[in-house]
Amino acid sequence: MQTDIRATGDAAASADQPYAYPLLIKQLLHTPLAHAPDQEIVYRDVCRHTYRDLVARIGRLGSALSRLGVGQGDTVAVADWDSHRYLESYFAIPMLGAVLMTVNVRLSPEQIAYTIDHCGAETLLINTEFLPILDGIRERLPKLKRIVLLSDEPCDPAAVGAVGEYEALLAAADPQHAFPDFDENTRATTFYTTGTTGLPKGVFFSHRQLVLHTLGTLGGLAGAASGQRLHRGDVYMPITPMFHVHAWGLPYVATMLGVKQVYPGRYVPDMLLQLRRTEGVTFSHCVPTILQMLLLAPAAKEMDLSGWKMVIGGSAFTVGLATQAVARGMDVFTGYGMSETCPILTLAQLKPADLDLQPEQTVPDRCRTGLPIPLVNLRIVDGNLEDVAHDDQAQGEVVVRAPWLTQGYLKDADATAHLWRGGWLHTQDIGRIAPSGSLQITDRIKDVIKSGGEWISSLEIETLISQHPAVAEVAVLGVPDARWGERPLPVVVPKAGAEGVTAEDIIAHLRAFADAGRISRFAVPDQVRFADSLEKTSVGKINKRQMRERYAAG
Amino acid sequence: MQTDIRATGDAAASADQPYAYPLLIKQLLHTPLAHAPDQEIVYRDVCRHTYRDLVARIGRLGSALSRLGVGQGDTVAVADWDSHRYLESYFAIPMLGAVLMTVNVRLSPEQIAYTIDHCGAETLLINTEFLPILDGIRERLPKLKRIVLLSDEPCDPAAVGAVGEYEALLAAADPQHAFPDFDENTRATTFYTTGTTGLPKGVFFSHRQLVLHTLGTLGGLAGAASGQRLHRGDVYMPITPMFHVHAWGLPYVATMLGVKQVYPGRYVPDMLLQLRRTEGVTFSHCVPTILQMLLLAPAAKEMDLSGWKMVIGGSAFTVGLATQAVARGMDVFTGYGMSETCPILTLAQLKPADLDLQPEQTVPDRCRTGLPIPLVNLRIVDGNLEDVAHDDQAQGEVVVRAPWLTQGYLKDADATAHLWRGGWLHTQDIGRIAPSGSLQITDRIKDVIKSGGEWISSLEIETLISQHPAVAEVAVLGVPDARWGERPLPVVVPKAGAEGVTAEDIIAHLRAFADAGRISRFAVPDQVRFADSLEKTSVGKINKRQMRERYAAG
Repeated sequence: MQTDIRATGDAAASADQPYAYPLLIKQLLHTPLAHAPDQEIVYRDVCRHTYRDLVARIGRLGSALSRLGVGQGDTVAVADWDSHRYLESYFAIPMLGAVLMTVNVRLSPEQIAYTIDHCGAETLLINTEFLPILDGIRERLPKLKRIVLLSDEPCDPAAVGAVGEYEALLAAADPQHAFPDFDENTRATTFYTTGTTGLPKGVFFSHRQLVLHTLGTLGGLAGAASGQRLHRGDVYMPITPMFHVHAWGLPYVATMLGVKQVYPGRYVPDMLLQLRRTEGVTFSHCVPTILQMLLLAPAAKEMDLSGWKMVIGGSAFTVGLATQAVARGMDVFTGYGMSETCPILTLAQLKPADLDLQPEQTVPDRCRTGLPIPLVNLRIVDGNLEDVAHDDQAQGEVVVRAPWLTQGYLKDADATAHLWRGGWLHTQDIGRIAPSGSLQITDRIKDVIKSGGEWISSLEIETLISQHPAVAEVAVLGVPDARWGERPLPVVVPKAGAEGVTAEDIIAHLRAFADAGRISRFAVPDQVRFADSLEKTSVGKINKRQMRERYAAG
Repeated sequence: MQTDIRATGDAAASADQPYAYPLLIKQLLHTPLAHAPDQEIVYRDVCRHTYRDLVARIGRLGSALSRLGVGQGDTVAVADWDSHRYLESYFAIPMLGAVLMTVNVRLSPEQIAYTIDHCGAETLLINTEFLPILDGIRERLPKLKRIVLLSDEPCDPAAVGAVGEYEALLAAADPQHAFPDFDENTRATTFYTTGTTGLPKGVFFSHRQLVLHTLGTLGGLAGAASGQRLHRGDVYMPITPMFHVHAWGLPYVATMLGVKQVYPGRYVPDMLLQLRRTEGVTFSHCVPTILQMLLLAPAAKEMDLSGWKMVIGGSAFTVGLATQAVARGMDVFTGYGMSETCPILTLAQLKPADLDLQPEQTVPDRCRTGLPIPLVNLRIVDGNLEDVAHDDQAQGEVVVRAPWLTQGYLKDADATAHLWRGGWLHTQDIGRIAPSGSLQITDRIKDVIKSGGEWISSLEIETLISQHPAVAEVAVLGVPDARWGERPLPVVVPKAGAEGVTAEDIIAHLRAFADAGRISRFAVPDQVRFADSLEKTSVGKINKRQMRERYAAG
């Protein structure tokens, strides 16, 4: 039995008229059903379903939510770790004409309450692990009408005032739900982006945007000559949370392609590595911190990591970390984008001409920000929106147009107009473009260090410091300086066993790059701080704002 | 200097508003300009340009045509062999908001006159080789206002009443043409499909449809695990005429991908093979007849053809021909579609699980019609539009929905309603679908042989006969029979040196398949005819209607 992903209320069918084919998320399911109905979708060591099951379960979820009262335009929030249930929600909720809101469970309870309330969600699908959080914020969610529990273990919905448990609801529901056709510009998803200041801001994406992002990302990923690509023989496992920018959109791409998918639940290095081995995972994506965690995990020591393709994004991918991964035979490369951009804009795939290089020679290109995927119109511009030169020297703000950029911030016209100044989405990233076309982000506008009238890229200094053998992690901050305005201050986390490294070692290491002309002498810091760890945001990015506050005092 | 493919009349830019990003053909040019501005586009042994040049020349062509008076909604007809000029027209004409009409120069002069007049073209870009045809039909083209000459040699436009010669017009024009934004549903192309009966019928495609066909085709082609795929390291050369269904859409795909492209002019086997060698061509597409011509060309005998990827479409790809190509190391596979479908619907790529097979074992899968590309919703149905089983036995008509199907026939509402009966595009092809999802077209509705109440697939019998070692080409016709209604009649062209083959040989060959249960005994013909060649249509397909008329008399 298979759910009906064809049109209903089908005007074309009744009148012998051409079918106008709206770009709806349900249309992504045609290819996998034809190519790979028996291919598997695995959830940890808990359960496995086929794509045929996936489509039937999407139908059941659609039927169940409809019966609970979810209709077109309603918002349904989901709070879960990465699971088959989340994948089913990625499809069924938007396919109903409702809006999927992915709850960032790493935010503070206050922020979680703010985001669920701000988007107007009346329905919440929540993993029982997060019920204690919900307990604390329940009274701040007056719009919330119904809760559905998600759990790998038996649980009692009535005991917590929930309308049901996910698997029980699906079991009782009709798999043949007739998902309607509607306008492709209907909102499909929304989620919140957290800067380091202010309230979280909601971004939102339509069916059309998600379908086009899926096609553009597939074209960009699959088009590589060899390596750094996703294809029908791959086994996909996300290691970027599904509440974070559609897990970069890859669950949609992997589903359309019909590949085997593996959902790892909460990220635990041993489970991730075990799934890599037992399920034969070949394609993942994560932030640098997770890659580092995987490389350092005891279980990884004896494991064959070679051939594991991994897109690295979310924050700068340093040469030091990339070198470690490449030495293990991993096929790591940068992907670039942000919450506002759905997210993928560029990928750092090797060019066909570079395929003969030795692995270590490819590291710098893997760490660049990369080249735009199909349809992305990406520029670096000055303050007047004029192009700056593509000589890998001149820097400008990265501005973009693509068919999948958020058309604004939810209920915030001022921030929307600021984001879209001059009709281009402003990334607030500073970058340079090489004659080869490859973009290199050098800094966030707000993190660039303005010292003695010169701009110093904190990212560039971090990249060089990360290559020092004693350095595990580093952040370079701009701290106030009476004479120069700002000066760069590196905060270094030494590797285990390398705690003896000194400020002089780090400064001498950088001075060598200045002597070689790679950075200006002015960019060499006067002092270095050491720490046991760096401050991180809820999504694992270094929180420079907080660090600046802490270290500015000196 | 580079033409401006950004928005003009840019409402978003002037008002700090989100850019809505229409899907326009010009948007395909962003990626190649970023990835491969110095990559080459080669025209025979005549000239070569970079992608940077391509974009500047598109700008010049836009400026030149604008100055000649071509505006939004006008139709511009082009009659040329495959050239860089044609590629430039594929972009510049639609980018002006005008409609590109590709003239099928293999039609009769009467049909050419009919099609140019029917589409209302006021402008004609024509290769000087076709001037004699134009001479004979000029007075039947009252709407035609201006002619531009295309030629590899110096020529005198004034002498034939033309407004200019292509290269001279481009040289005098501004490369910085500001192509406007407009509605993505604006018509971009039109061309005519010739059945074997009646007047040619015009089909038409919008910018949105062509952009989505480009993305879907790239996703489908590039997503293969290994082989049968197009990637950034390939060198592309079409061997399907550019006047025929957008050369299957591949010039747009190749351009968006930024690969080296080779345009071979008129198809001459020696030139095609020379370009394969000198330019390193790795990816092409053609009809079976052209593949056979290439394999039989004296120059091919000593040549290394291995690794040449080739999509075969337009008519059935027989196991006999595929076996020959695979034996030469060619990576041949079927592509399926038609003029009405932009055209690509399916591709016969090998599945990841089949990559370990010996080459000859892969031939049957390469010859099947294949699996749908992304977004294609393809069904086989009975007369009530109900699905028939996917058991590779049950047959039904192939009906489709995709975002790139013609929304009708030009100025022909009745034919449009017939094409789109029940809101599905009716291909008029009969097929079966295997449990693996792979489609096999067994016949055209009108070519299926109805004999004694049973359906016999002419294609299936042709496929089996083509495997006989003495057979070069074969067509199986349904001819009237007093007792059975119709009986199958094979018309066989023997291979050179195998003219001794007899009707009994062919019948015995087929009887062996009937004994093995592969075909019904009823499908084994009672007689066989031999011929020096088969009747073909203007686009090289076997003209069964004409053959039936000739052979029906017996």
